[in-house]
Amino acid sequence: MVKSVIRTVAPHTTVVDITHGIPPHDVRAGSLALVRSVQYLLPGVVLAVVDPGVGTDRRAVAVEVGGEGEGDTAYFVGPDNGLMAAAVAMAGGATRAVELSAAAYHLPSPGLTFAGRDVFAPVAGHLCNGVDLADFGPAVDPVTLRPGILPLSRREDEKLLAEVLWVDCFGNVQLNVGPDEIAGDGDRLALRWGHDQVRTARRAAAYGDLKPGEVGLVVDSYGLVSLALDRRSAAEELRIGAGDAVTLEPPS
Amino acid sequence: MVKSVIRTVAPHTTVVDITHGIPPHDVRAGSLALVRSVQYLLPGVVLAVVDPGVGTDRRAVAVEVGGEGEGDTAYFVGPDNGLMAAAVAMAGGATRAVELSAAAYHLPSPGLTFAGRDVFAPVAGHLCNGVDLADFGPAVDPVTLRPGILPLSRREDEKLLAEVLWVDCFGNVQLNVGPDEIAGDGDRLALRWGHDQVRTARRAAAYGDLKPGEVGLVVDSYGLVSLALDRRSAAEELRIGAGDAVTLEPPS
Amino acid sequence: MVKSVIRTVAPHTTVVDITHGIPPHDVRAGSLALVRSVQYLLPGVVLAVVDPGVGTDRRAVAVEVGGEGEGDTAYFVGPDNGLMAAAVAMAGGATRAVELSAAAYHLPSPGLTFAGRDVFAPVAGHLCNGVDLADFGPAVDPVTLRPGILPLSRREDEKLLAEVLWVDCFGNVQLNVGPDEIAGDGDRLALRWGHDQVRTARRAAAYGDLKPGEVGLVVDSYGLVSLALDRRSAAEELRIGAGDAVTLEPPS
Repeated sequence: MVKSVIRTVAPHTTVVDITHGIPPHDVRAGSLALVRSVQYLLPGVVLAVVDPGVGTDRRAVAVEVGGEGEGDTAYFVGPDNGLMAAAVAMAGGATRAVELSAAAYHLPSPGLTFAGRDVFAPVAGHLCNGVDLADFGPAVDPVTLRPGILPLSRREDEKLLAEVLWVDCFGNVQLNVGPDEIAGDGDRLALRWGHDQVRTARRAAAYGDLKPGEVGLVVDSYGLVSLALDRRSAAEELRIGAGDAVTLEPPS
Repeated sequence: MVKSVIRTVAPHTTVVDITHGIPPHDVRAGSLALVRSVQYLLPGVVLAVVDPGVGTDRRAVAVEVGGEGEGDTAYFVGPDNGLMAAAVAMAGGATRAVELSAAAYHLPSPGLTFAGRDVFAPVAGHLCNGVDLADFGPAVDPVTLRPGILPLSRREDEKLLAEVLWVDCFGNVQLNVGPDEIAGDGDRLALRWGHDQVRTARRAAAYGDLKPGEVGLVVDSYGLVSLALDRRSAAEELRIGAGDAVTLEPPS
Repeated sequence: MVKSVIRTVAPHTTVVDITHGIPPHDVRAGSLALVRSVQYLLPGVVLAVVDPGVGTDRRAVAVEVGGEGEGDTAYFVGPDNGLMAAAVAMAGGATRAVELSAAAYHLPSPGLTFAGRDVFAPVAGHLCNGVDLADFGPAVDPVTLRPGILPLSRREDEKLLAEVLWVDCFGNVQLNVGPDEIAGDGDRLALRWGHDQVRTARRAAAYGDLKPGEVGLVVDSYGLVSLALDRRSAAEELRIGAGDAVTLEPPS
């Protein structure tokens, strides 16, 4: 219905799905999905909805990134609950923002619970049609937009304390660790997680380079270190999931 | 494949998915999904397939709604098994209907089991191209189209006997009850279901207005009363599903 | 992201999803999904990714089928791991092929694990734009492309030894058996599978022609014989799945 509303407003628009697989109410997972994909989406209008506060006083907003009127201008439309903050930052930061209170650009709502269809979709369509951001409602100072939380890894002596950002559909376990953070370490690292569980993980360039059962440290397609097995789910093998804490350290 | 067939026939067409999540053979669930979305889809051609009788003597039909040749004309293409009846009614009722027997508008079929690809998709494409309804086969009197079943709630003394229409992906439980049907009741109602289970439900405008664990009566985005919890699945909490009977009454 | 990359390169392109439901790493299932759909997709560019060897020395290729420059020319883009072989053969066989080594047509990769986004998608987009196949890399002799495996049924006296190709979303069990292979047999056949399990299966034209609980032999929408029940899952009832061996023989 969201797509149908967008196309009714802006029939020329092409809609691309980023994901419909975010767990209900999981703003963090939605935020990370946006961060992973944003560089491949813009310029354009990004409509994001993970919105447990729909119908309450959380603001509905549209955020502009890139130079006003320039070719690389893009827009994010969604709830002001931190969902879009990290992606907006990655896209260069907000240049303007508005609260979506101009009802002329919304659909009449039988209820308050589906802002995606009734508010964000028609606004996204009108943005595609070239309606100016200022027409959708009063300006919002971008610094007042709710920040997102991107968990950072940190060093503690020889240990790198990290966190699982995401498990992909193959069971690969993405960490909040860039390859440079373990560049000085050897080829093999001790991986610790859960209740003192430990396993050796070995760097590899590709899943297919891993031996059967071997845990690999593979730089994934987003440039982050992931835990992986060849043709098996590392998440299942290690019983580890998004948000879990993980430590990487030199083998003892 | 259905989409590829539509676009081969009518390359200019934009296809929007309503849902691919109808349980197998569940004509009722498909019918209700159409009713929820139809006002956001038209004008256009709606292709609907929940078709357990495919290949038998159930008719394949196309139904026109709205004035012939007027701007708001729309078409429904699918099996004549009740699937489209309620949506057709909501869209203003059938003005014309035909049985899809003109094989020139079908694909040659290796088998009889996928009318969606071999019959409905090419017909939908040709409708998008402006082929007249009458070309697809002999006229069918709309009153002979198989009716759908929309369960109605009913009053019995102080009790409102209702039924679960649908559980959405968040676990919100949509009832066949409009807000006006409980307008005269208080803020809190007793909810009865299953084997004499009972719980108090409180009206709320938004999911986020509910206290932890509290069952809410929230007018959903289709204008119907739904049972909901904040950030949790009411369907799981109450162990209730589509088709279940529910009673709302004043608290004792 | 793959779709967004394609459209960034070739904004005029229409993208149709064949499936996103292939089990991880299951090249055979992906290959069969392509074979089922290929006749409905062409002409066009088919991008296929089931790619457990991504990042290793498996080749990335684009394969041309149909006459060069003719209206029915089509392209297959993906890993050279057998995934596309049977579909290429069904589409008439490869006329040309190249290895995708011209980095100018790839995206810069943060990692090596997502060739779908970084290699196949931009190449597919450039093919849609009319870039010549030869520009993407050095020619590959089509006979060196990795073959696919299509399991063939075989006769052994009165027995037809077959294999399950696929279980669809309704639980219908597609066999590698054409209707002509059992044309000389009677209306009822003994179905044997697993540990000497046996059941009578009856030919039927449509699912709805089967009696409750009766196992049918129904020619499916791909022209192959499938095991089916009316409004129930044959795969669940028989506890049978893709790759399982099945024997059809005259009833004793």
